[in-house]
Amino acid sequence: MIEKYSIRTDLALEQKERFESDNVEVQGVVLEESYDEEREIRITTVKIETEKGAKTMGKPVGTYITMEAPNMAVPDEGYHEEVSKELMKFLQRFLDKDKKDYSVLVVGLGNRMVTPDALGPYVADNLNITRHIVKEYGKYAMGEEEVHLVSSIVPGVMAQTGMETVEIIRGVVKETEPDIIIAVDALAARSSKRLNRTIQIADTGINPGSGVGNHRNAITEETVGVPVIAIGVPTVVDAATIVNDTMENLIAALETSETLRGVGVVMQGYNAAEKYELVKELISPHLNGMFVTPKDIDETVKRISFTISEALNMLFA
Amino acid sequence: MIEKYSIRTDLALEQKERFESDNVEVQGVVLEESYDEEREIRITTVKIETEKGAKTMGKPVGTYITMEAPNMAVPDEGYHEEVSKELMKFLQRFLDKDKKDYSVLVVGLGNRMVTPDALGPYVADNLNITRHIVKEYGKYAMGEEEVHLVSSIVPGVMAQTGMETVEIIRGVVKETEPDIIIAVDALAARSSKRLNRTIQIADTGINPGSGVGNHRNAITEETVGVPVIAIGVPTVVDAATIVNDTMENLIAALETSETLRGVGVVMQGYNAAEKYELVKELISPHLNGMFVTPKDIDETVKRISFTISEALNMLFA
Amino acid sequence: MIEKYSIRTDLALEQKERFESDNVEVQGVVLEESYDEEREIRITTVKIETEKGAKTMGKPVGTYITMEAPNMAVPDEGYHEEVSKELMKFLQRFLDKDKKDYSVLVVGLGNRMVTPDALGPYVADNLNITRHIVKEYGKYAMGEEEVHLVSSIVPGVMAQTGMETVEIIRGVVKETEPDIIIAVDALAARSSKRLNRTIQIADTGINPGSGVGNHRNAITEETVGVPVIAIGVPTVVDAATIVNDTMENLIAALETSETLRGVGVVMQGYNAAEKYELVKELISPHLNGMFVTPKDIDETVKRISFTISEALNMLFA
Amino acid sequence: MIEKYSIRTDLALEQKERFESDNVEVQGVVLEESYDEEREIRITTVKIETEKGAKTMGKPVGTYITMEAPNMAVPDEGYHEEVSKELMKFLQRFLDKDKKDYSVLVVGLGNRMVTPDALGPYVADNLNITRHIVKEYGKYAMGEEEVHLVSSIVPGVMAQTGMETVEIIRGVVKETEPDIIIAVDALAARSSKRLNRTIQIADTGINPGSGVGNHRNAITEETVGVPVIAIGVPTVVDAATIVNDTMENLIAALETSETLRGVGVVMQGYNAAEKYELVKELISPHLNGMFVTPKDIDETVKRISFTISEALNMLFA
Repeated sequence: MIEKYSIRTDLALEQKERFESDNVEVQGVVLEESYDEEREIRITTVKIETEKGAKTMGKPVGTYITMEAPNMAVPDEGYHEEVSKELMKFLQRFLDKDKKDYSVLVVGLGNRMVTPDALGPYVADNLNITRHIVKEYGKYAMGEEEVHLVSSIVPGVMAQTGMETVEIIRGVVKETEPDIIIAVDALAARSSKRLNRTIQIADTGINPGSGVGNHRNAITEETVGVPVIAIGVPTVVDAATIVNDTMENLIAALETSETLRGVGVVMQGYNAAEKYELVKELISPHLNGMFVTPKDIDETVKRISFTISEALNMLFA
Repeated sequence: MIEKYSIRTDLALEQKERFESDNVEVQGVVLEESYDEEREIRITTVKIETEKGAKTMGKPVGTYITMEAPNMAVPDEGYHEEVSKELMKFLQRFLDKDKKDYSVLVVGLGNRMVTPDALGPYVADNLNITRHIVKEYGKYAMGEEEVHLVSSIVPGVMAQTGMETVEIIRGVVKETEPDIIIAVDALAARSSKRLNRTIQIADTGINPGSGVGNHRNAITEETVGVPVIAIGVPTVVDAATIVNDTMENLIAALETSETLRGVGVVMQGYNAAEKYELVKELISPHLNGMFVTPKDIDETVKRISFTISEALNMLFA
Repeated sequence: MIEKYSIRTDLALEQKERFESDNVEVQGVVLEESYDEEREIRITTVKIETEKGAKTMGKPVGTYITMEAPNMAVPDEGYHEEVSKELMKFLQRFLDKDKKDYSVLVVGLGNRMVTPDALGPYVADNLNITRHIVKEYGKYAMGEEEVHLVSSIVPGVMAQTGMETVEIIRGVVKETEPDIIIAVDALAARSSKRLNRTIQIADTGINPGSGVGNHRNAITEETVGVPVIAIGVPTVVDAATIVNDTMENLIAALETSETLRGVGVVMQGYNAAEKYELVKELISPHLNGMFVTPKDIDETVKRISFTISEALNMLFA
Repeated sequence: MIEKYSIRTDLALEQKERFESDNVEVQGVVLEESYDEEREIRITTVKIETEKGAKTMGKPVGTYITMEAPNMAVPDEGYHEEVSKELMKFLQRFLDKDKKDYSVLVVGLGNRMVTPDALGPYVADNLNITRHIVKEYGKYAMGEEEVHLVSSIVPGVMAQTGMETVEIIRGVVKETEPDIIIAVDALAARSSKRLNRTIQIADTGINPGSGVGNHRNAITEETVGVPVIAIGVPTVVDAATIVNDTMENLIAALETSETLRGVGVVMQGYNAAEKYELVKELISPHLNGMFVTPKDIDETVKRISFTISEALNMLFA
């Protein structure tokens, strides 16, 4: 088996799949699946329950819910409303049901100027912001007896700010004392099939290495002082990932295909380390820092950002 | 004399002029003027030296330098370079010359989505950001022995964030500990003649009531903990200001013009309070929250934002 | 009566009101009004039926429908849906009901970079564009038996293109041969009360002098070769208009008010021409090319652009 | 030799290199190279002189100049000025030196909303537009005796307009009758090494299959009626290209490497068609319509667009 050295995915689901494909049992990790046939939405919950599981998975202990909705990439307004409602329900699981007046800070991570990384900023653009109104006029100004205080920030990326995103968020949290952060970010998937049709919700915050631009340190309860729920949508695949995957396929084909007369036999003489070296040499160093994304990413990101902001607007209405 | 009740200006120079036009001596305020004929730039320095002067002027104690450069509204690249250099020199006055490694946070105030209020965000877009590079690779990474650390943030306006801008800045300052803040903002002038051809630099920070959207509490050394230099360019006039000014002109004409046979005589029977009430009634309440700006504001704001970011890039190179 | 020399309005309704306020009967112009109490929408139809009426009104022969919906400036999604439906109905009046396969070119007039002038471009951004799909795959690709072909262009303004907008549109029409043009534009109103809460639909196209930037020659059936329906929303008031109006109020007050002892009497010695000159001198020449707009224009324009694009998407679905 | 079935490049230089790497002599194609050591700019001129050469190359007869300037991807203002000047010189070669009053239409191709495809629109944003001024005030208004008329359009992409770009351009050309078109577009390269550091200038216009989004028919003298000079910068690589290239490398390694004991021998039993099928099967169909681009594409595209618009502004000053 080739070492999957360069593979990066921000989806716990994909990380789990890798072990499954290798028939490796991961201790401390529980998987649940369900399928909503009517809406064609597949829900997968990955619970990393122990530190050992966390270490194996390379992701912190916590719950990761993945909604796979193939039609999310399609401009069907009614369908997007359904997805918004589902997303709202899953977010509710991470909130305290009895709390009537959440103060929530929504953080739109990513770079507004790079289309597949603009998901977070776009979500922030369409939120119903209420904190300043309630602060100024009291909660009755909202015409409701119980209101949540929604605030939002688009911190920008390090090349724009010169600061770690966590520095900005931590500072803002100390000053404005929200109860909870919801951080929205564009993710990198392993599989191009999942792009723009998958939403991951996690109660673990944002961790180093995740996100398109990978431009931040951890944004978690430990680093910012309040719980952080992360909403992510994979919009890119690392260029090296795509190349690596295809090469693994080629080598697997060489090893196993009956039609490839004889090659397989010879390849079996190589051990994993040798194959690893072979692939590594062939991947161009120019692919570092490059990502793969669809040509219609502008429409897709705009559409999905609405779906997410609608879910948040319903949740905190 | 009509009470100038509704007049708002963010320019200390204009505030001073008002008193002059009324022949009122303002104690504790010193004015210096110079004119660079070659470059056609008029420099006015208003120093508010005492608390009494501050009270009269409605602006805090400090130094306000105004550069009036009529050609700034024109697309002449060479001229803009000259203005950048002048601006850099005036900013240097507010810095410690012997300090070799300033850590400066540039704050781009205002609303990127409202053209005349986008000056601050646009300036931030074109800065050479270095703090993260120096932090990661050391100052020698910059190829210089002495380097300044430049960071930047575009906090957004309250309707977008639900937070006071000062809350965001104070938090960021506590986390990243800059030596100084430079806050760039679009201002409201009293006179439409000054729009887009005037830059005010002040060592007093940003104070309530200033700025196009007027969307923030004070951002000053007292509120954020480090000195705040403010760079402002008037890009709008309050709608009520323009109406008020013209009506004052009308009443003055009625009072003084010889050609207006007899009218003036009668008006003199009114005292200031009566005239004030007359004007106040006639200004439409619909003008509140409205501003006046030129139709080519998009090009002007873009051009001036470059001039300012170039000055900052030279200053901290 | 003071000559209303500098007053500009793009709303036929306001033009009509001016004559009414002066008790002038306008021949060849018919006015109809209705009020939808439930939705709080006032509908006014101005029909200019003769060339004489057109000359008096300063607008071409045709039908101008104005929807005044005060809540349009407010973020109420349900209400905006109602307005979209109403707008769709009025647009239908201008279309041939029996035609099943309209080829329509939507033109988003104005300047994307100047917020109150960005209405047209924003509407274009959210249209369901279908022409290229039908052209490539046939109308069954749309899953419907009868489909309209929707195309769209955002021509930009003359300062950006160096071309008259009508040159661009005429060229595109000749090449792509739409049946009809729908031109969306931001307008100038006379009254600040009407800003962002009024939609005008006219079958007369776009005529010189209308629009925020006033950046184009006529775009009408005569100039581009196909019928042009114009949808406009007033987002600005000319600065000179606001000043002029308030000064007229002042002079009227001086002339009539009983509390203004004696002044009125004297003013009556002036004829209209003299008063006209007085006002004209007092309006600053710096106000030319300046407009008045509300500070929250970014949110309002975004919201109303959705309302209009939804109406168009429903109409041509 | 594996058939290079899916490889797409918009650079004539790269097309030529492919044949060279296969030791294929291309008749009717002449290559010239020069290297400016001081500026580190490599200039390659590919002249396709015959229809046969055109057929082999898959590109029309004409001259393709490629400037490779590795530092173009770096934020060095002085260097970009040098590149602007070089670019201006090469553009001059395609113009009539004795013509004093060019009427030029600059077309900013691509999609402003997808970062690597926004090059053309960004270039248009920073041009000195003069046509409307000269038309209105005469050429002396520009303060010069001889002036060029510069106009510009950003037509948008088919998903936004529903029209082929060539339809829009042809229409605009007929109405405004420019002497020449300069079309600026983002390109797809074969090699990720060339991204954002290469400029191609060609007198052949824009041809089907070129550009990031590949969203248009030919824009050439034949289709629009005036000569079309194309300026292109590769900002993306097709995802399938990157995968294909690496797999070719793998198969080549398997065939030739001495360290890969024995595999090569067996692979040699496969003919080109069989290898072609093997690779084709392994490339994921999900990669169609996907591109690879660097994470800092926002800064790079902005910087290079300035370099190009400066060259055009100097050329037509």
